Amino acid sequence: MKIKLASKYGFCFGVKRAIKIAESEKNASTIGPLIHNNEEIERLRKHFNVDTLSSISEIDGIKKAIIRTHGIPKEDLATLKTKGIDIIDATCPFVTKPQKICEKMSQEGYDIVIFGDKNHPEVKGVKSYAKEPVYVVLHVEELEKLRLGKKVAVVSQTTRKVEEFMKIVSALVARHKEVRVFNTICNATFENQDATRALSKEADVMVVIGGKNSSNTKQLLNIAKEFCEDSYLIESERELDNKWFIGKKLCGISAGASTPDWIINKVIEKISKIKV
Amino acid sequence: MKIKLASKYGFCFGVKRAIKIAESEKNASTIGPLIHNNEEIERLRKHFNVDTLSSISEIDGIKKAIIRTHGIPKEDLATLKTKGIDIIDATCPFVTKPQKICEKMSQEGYDIVIFGDKNHPEVKGVKSYAKEPVYVVLHVEELEKLRLGKKVAVVSQTTRKVEEFMKIVSALVARHKEVRVFNTICNATFENQDATRALSKEADVMVVIGGKNSSNTKQLLNIAKEFCEDSYLIESERELDNKWFIGKKLCGISAGASTPDWIINKVIEKISKIKV
Repeated sequence: MKIKLASKYGFCFGVKRAIKIAESEKNASTIGPLIHNNEEIERLRKHFNVDTLSSISEIDGIKKAIIRTHGIPKEDLATLKTKGIDIIDATCPFVTKPQKICEKMSQEGYDIVIFGDKNHPEVKGVKSYAKEPVYVVLHVEELEKLRLGKKVAVVSQTTRKVEEFMKIVSALVARHKEVRVFNTICNATFENQDATRALSKEADVMVVIGGKNSSNTKQLLNIAKEFCEDSYLIESERELDNKWFIGKKLCGISAGASTPDWIINKVIEKISKIKV
Repeated sequence: MKIKLASKYGFCFGVKRAIKIAESEKNASTIGPLIHNNEEIERLRKHFNVDTLSSISEIDGIKKAIIRTHGIPKEDLATLKTKGIDIIDATCPFVTKPQKICEKMSQEGYDIVIFGDKNHPEVKGVKSYAKEPVYVVLHVEELEKLRLGKKVAVVSQTTRKVEEFMKIVSALVARHKEVRVFNTICNATFENQDATRALSKEADVMVVIGGKNSSNTKQLLNIAKEFCEDSYLIESERELDNKWFIGKKLCGISAGASTPDWIINKVIEKISKIKV
């Protein structure tokens, strides 16, 4: 069986930057996981004493806080500031952008629509920068219930599929006089998605490596499944199952934006030893 | 054969307003046809001495100029002003809007895309209010050649189909960081289109009445043809052909936004006398 890596995969700019920050700061705490990859989080804890608080309620006693790549709600940032804690901002600049857009558009009197998952930390953070009315939607049907004015601004969670964003935009344009569309989907997301799409068209088994809580990784799995039925999402090489590869000719490999190379390498090593 | 009128048809707000203005002003000239309906233009000439100049080059000697519903280019308006001619503005307020939007967005540094027919007088007028770069496009493929910046504002010719506008918007959103979408398609256009669509699904012959130079009338014909193969565009009852109605059970009738009731009534009268 041949093994082929997607032409683009793994770490994006924002994740690389956040890890560099965490490694150089050391002895700090992040509020929520710095990135959506448990293995890498564990490595940072072990080698750089960067631990992960589950929420802002646990900050008492900490000296140095690193803001996760996904950003945190405005109120949580304000809380950190009142406690006199050292704040190191590792929010991805591509996430800071929709935060700023929401703040500015609200000030200018636009009603805000955020395309994304309302339970995702990035979206919670972005939403906190908008004044009411602000709505988070994933599906076109949800728009019908909203009470939006004539002027609407719309942003996207950075890791969404652009085709799905278009559906929301089209429905808004049909109904509202002015729709200010900010395409805040990040290029790295596009590139990993395009490369996964291309590879899954030729592969007969696809392995996508990344956190199961990672939005962009889950999107990659969805795309892979569209073209290659036998597509699997794993967090580490320990989850590989020899049965997946029986009779297969080409195994495609892709990885989410928060998956470090050292995990990808371990996966490739293990797959290459499987006898098919 | 039964005859059924679309639930919405004919004169829109802007056309009604322009005719009222022309009737009350009298003895004036319009630069280009006031509305896209030759029969109505002829009635205004005969009964109210409102004549139609073919272009701005013919204005010497006139005292009173009425601006057509479609508006005129900014430069032509400036020329009129320098000549000391009385100017009466019958530009449809729904056309004034994209003109103002283009002016403002250009000032704010947006590159402008106008969705419409570059040869249509409304579009020529709207375009004249934007600074370069400004592009008029009808099809998505045309976008590829354009040199647009990060910030793009897009408006539509008032009489276009919203589904087509969406195609342009979607392509822009995929490529540009900020797209400010102004849905300037007018409601009357939507309403006449929806009613024509509904009627053409039940009729076995459709007659659309309106100017052959009228953009919104041509759109109605296209919509009718989608659902009813035997659809015809006529400007007056004189163009009716008995053969169209042989063996038909339901004749649907719709009319463009610049078609006066007196023409529609003549058409209905004549059709009702046809023996099928």
